[in-house]
Amino acid sequence: MKLSANTIAEEFKRIQASICSGLEALDGKAKFASDLWNRPGGGGGDTRVIQNGEVFEKGGVNFSAVHGETTPELKQMLNTEAKEFFATGVSIVLHPNNPFVPIIHMNIRYFELPGTDTYWFGGGIDLTPSYVFEDDAIHFHGEMKALCERHAAADYQKFKKTADEYFYIPHRGETRGLGGIFFDHLNESSSGFSKEDIAQFVFDTGNTFLQSYVTIAEKRKNTSFTPENKEWQLLRRGRYVEFNLIYDRGTTFGLKTNGRVESILMSLPKHASWEYNFEPKPSSREEISLQYFKKAKDWV
Amino acid sequence: MKLSANTIAEEFKRIQASICSGLEALDGKAKFASDLWNRPGGGGGDTRVIQNGEVFEKGGVNFSAVHGETTPELKQMLNTEAKEFFATGVSIVLHPNNPFVPIIHMNIRYFELPGTDTYWFGGGIDLTPSYVFEDDAIHFHGEMKALCERHAAADYQKFKKTADEYFYIPHRGETRGLGGIFFDHLNESSSGFSKEDIAQFVFDTGNTFLQSYVTIAEKRKNTSFTPENKEWQLLRRGRYVEFNLIYDRGTTFGLKTNGRVESILMSLPKHASWEYNFEPKPSSREEISLQYFKKAKDWV
Repeated sequence: MKLSANTIAEEFKRIQASICSGLEALDGKAKFASDLWNRPGGGGGDTRVIQNGEVFEKGGVNFSAVHGETTPELKQMLNTEAKEFFATGVSIVLHPNNPFVPIIHMNIRYFELPGTDTYWFGGGIDLTPSYVFEDDAIHFHGEMKALCERHAAADYQKFKKTADEYFYIPHRGETRGLGGIFFDHLNESSSGFSKEDIAQFVFDTGNTFLQSYVTIAEKRKNTSFTPENKEWQLLRRGRYVEFNLIYDRGTTFGLKTNGRVESILMSLPKHASWEYNFEPKPSSREEISLQYFKKAKDWV
Repeated sequence: MKLSANTIAEEFKRIQASICSGLEALDGKAKFASDLWNRPGGGGGDTRVIQNGEVFEKGGVNFSAVHGETTPELKQMLNTEAKEFFATGVSIVLHPNNPFVPIIHMNIRYFELPGTDTYWFGGGIDLTPSYVFEDDAIHFHGEMKALCERHAAADYQKFKKTADEYFYIPHRGETRGLGGIFFDHLNESSSGFSKEDIAQFVFDTGNTFLQSYVTIAEKRKNTSFTPENKEWQLLRRGRYVEFNLIYDRGTTFGLKTNGRVESILMSLPKHASWEYNFEPKPSSREEISLQYFKKAKDWV
């Protein structure tokens, strides 16, 4: 393991900075505010939040690098006697103003037990439009496929399927959005590729995120919309809240293990809505979009 | 057990009707729409929803009476071989428009394994203001105390404490609101009182609900408010969403056991909001209200 935890954290920090500056350029009005925080048990983070922008109603790009004593639960889960853990990651959720610009989520993360051979990478990117445009979906999934194809350590079909299964809201019988890629526990023993190879893929995921999203956001950000379009966006954001608070592993794990609440819940939209038994009109744009969330699809 | 499941369900249905008509009178504009539904496994319900009213932005008064086969999980949980279960209840959440009118929640429920001695009642009422008025809090808790004191089978101190403990959001270190009363698994063996005595208390809970709330709502419903007041109400509703989706037993159990989603999630507000790291100004009305949610208080 030549690639040290610090090197990975530094690269993640650089990715955060580059993404924030790209998103500020896209927004054109709002700037990220940086909130540096320390974790009582060790390490800390830099939570960057953009609010009330031209493109973004609310969004966060969170970096953290934390370490500390392994809890008894963690020891049991990992079947280890290691005393220390280290974890670093970048986590992003962006909620745009315009109902035709999709919500986007990205996460890249690295975990290790220092002094042992145990480590893994995880992450993913997934797109959640309120209104589905086929060309955006094809563009986005094409970017994800090309990203994976640049790296022998990445398996597009598998990561795509994992995203479809993960970003699913069972009680609604709907996917959260259009999926993307999702991977976890990637290391040499699980993948057969070196730690350096996997790291290159994970860094590339971080570096691919910006352009894969900006292309779509630029195209849709000035689309005019009606109050009905806004209402539909708020309802779809309600579904996003349901997924994140009930099913998202990072969120539920973070809240139950005394994580930094504001950094975890920065994923929630500024405004969301619920209406009893809302059903879009047959053949409306809303109803057509909803059909895409009823079943995962191979876009590329 | 002279008091039959059907008699209890009929009384619950009567309570639902009486509450809906009282709430319509309070609202003065909107009417409840009734949505009758059947449960595939047996039984059904009547979900009544009021939306876009004068007083209520959104609210639901749900009645259900369901029965069916006991699942293997239920059999194990209850240590029984009984083949059938029966459950009936009334569940209410009201989200008012005016930020000075509190959210209110009530639930009364009855469960039994037909043909066995196993049964219990549960329920409660709790008040969730965005802005705390001490006189409203004292009035409400006074009504709850008087309700309990009318029934030997009720234990106000215990039920009040249970509500304080239950309506708590650990990751926020805040109570959901001002509490009230909450009770569960009430039966002859747990309380020492007869099934009839307990039922009378539970019915009285249902019948006390309306007046205990209407007094407060009538007093506050015409208070003028600013956009800042509205914003605070939306943020507090966000906390309500967090509690219901993450911690509320009825909600999480219902969603995970394939319950009727729209009836379960009718508890969510029409509009809710999240802002990163929002902190009310020192000594503002918002900050003073927040202090009341940091620690449970004996109001009467």
